[in-house]
Amino acid sequence: MKRKMGVKNCLYPMPTVLVGALVNGKPNYITIAHVGIMDLASVSLGVAKFHYTNAGIRENGTFSINIPTTDMFRITDYCGIVSGKKVDKSVLFENFYGELRTAPMIKSFPINMECRLIQTVDFPKHDIFIGEIVETYCDTAYLDGDNVDIAKLSPILFTMDDRGYWSVGERFATAWEAGKELKAK
Amino acid sequence: MKRKMGVKNCLYPMPTVLVGALVNGKPNYITIAHVGIMDLASVSLGVAKFHYTNAGIRENGTFSINIPTTDMFRITDYCGIVSGKKVDKSVLFENFYGELRTAPMIKSFPINMECRLIQTVDFPKHDIFIGEIVETYCDTAYLDGDNVDIAKLSPILFTMDDRGYWSVGERFATAWEAGKELKAK
Repeated sequence: MKRKMGVKNCLYPMPTVLVGALVNGKPNYITIAHVGIMDLASVSLGVAKFHYTNAGIRENGTFSINIPTTDMFRITDYCGIVSGKKVDKSVLFENFYGELRTAPMIKSFPINMECRLIQTVDFPKHDIFIGEIVETYCDTAYLDGDNVDIAKLSPILFTMDDRGYWSVGERFATAWEAGKELKAK
Repeated sequence: MKRKMGVKNCLYPMPTVLVGALVNGKPNYITIAHVGIMDLASVSLGVAKFHYTNAGIRENGTFSINIPTTDMFRITDYCGIVSGKKVDKSVLFENFYGELRTAPMIKSFPINMECRLIQTVDFPKHDIFIGEIVETYCDTAYLDGDNVDIAKLSPILFTMDDRGYWSVGERFATAWEAGKELKAK
């Protein structure tokens, strides 16, 4: 039986990432799971306007996305519960920079994407930052050829309703294949 | 060891959904995993411009997001490999409408969100549709009080590199809690 729930966002789970930006000249990282894929080269971040990070993204026109594995969940969560206004998060990690020079990335995280801000959509209480990926760095331990092995990577999934961090389960089918039987009918 | 991968979108896995729209007066559904959360009331879809669905979303200014469970993977995949230009997908499901009256939804899918189009971001080969949720419908079998039980729901996760459909695994920690130990130090 269906129940009307009002305005309830159920588009979960989403991958949990650390977004890096240079704020007041220092690397800062914020935990975000309100992310999106626009196309194969572009991503979005929904970041509440009160956050410390936003000014840095705006000023430099760059940010990074750093993808943790499940065993990095404590430091990932920590970066979401302390603000760069109060805590210097630049000392938490070994930082590195790529082509954009102003998008700090976390060396110990298996995947980093450096992004150029191409558009900001102004929401009432959120900045929606849309970025194009300029370069992606993958730890070879999580690669199978040129592909990311998602089971090895074991990213952190987030669900809002239970404030849960979840792992990825089993691969059970292949996209653009699983429906072919129905197509043949 | 880190390897430079060029422009590679690694923001996976993403939830796989069927997007509903009225196209040429008939319900049509397209499979999408390039989605995003903007804020608690808003979502985004990245839909390649050549798709049949786009004109309908634009014309009516509405769409729906229908979330399947893993056992619905065949019909979910099928809706991604056949175009509404050639196949009448309105007959695949029992359709229903909500407040917006022009956003068809799938009765048998456990969660439906009807959305009003509030902005379109024009990408070279994609329309990025940003919608605000107007009403959400949840099958009570997948609810725990007012919360979606993600383990019961068992949504379909998508990864591009291996064209994989994946299930959700285990809940291993609580967000805004897991980092508190580090904060106390």
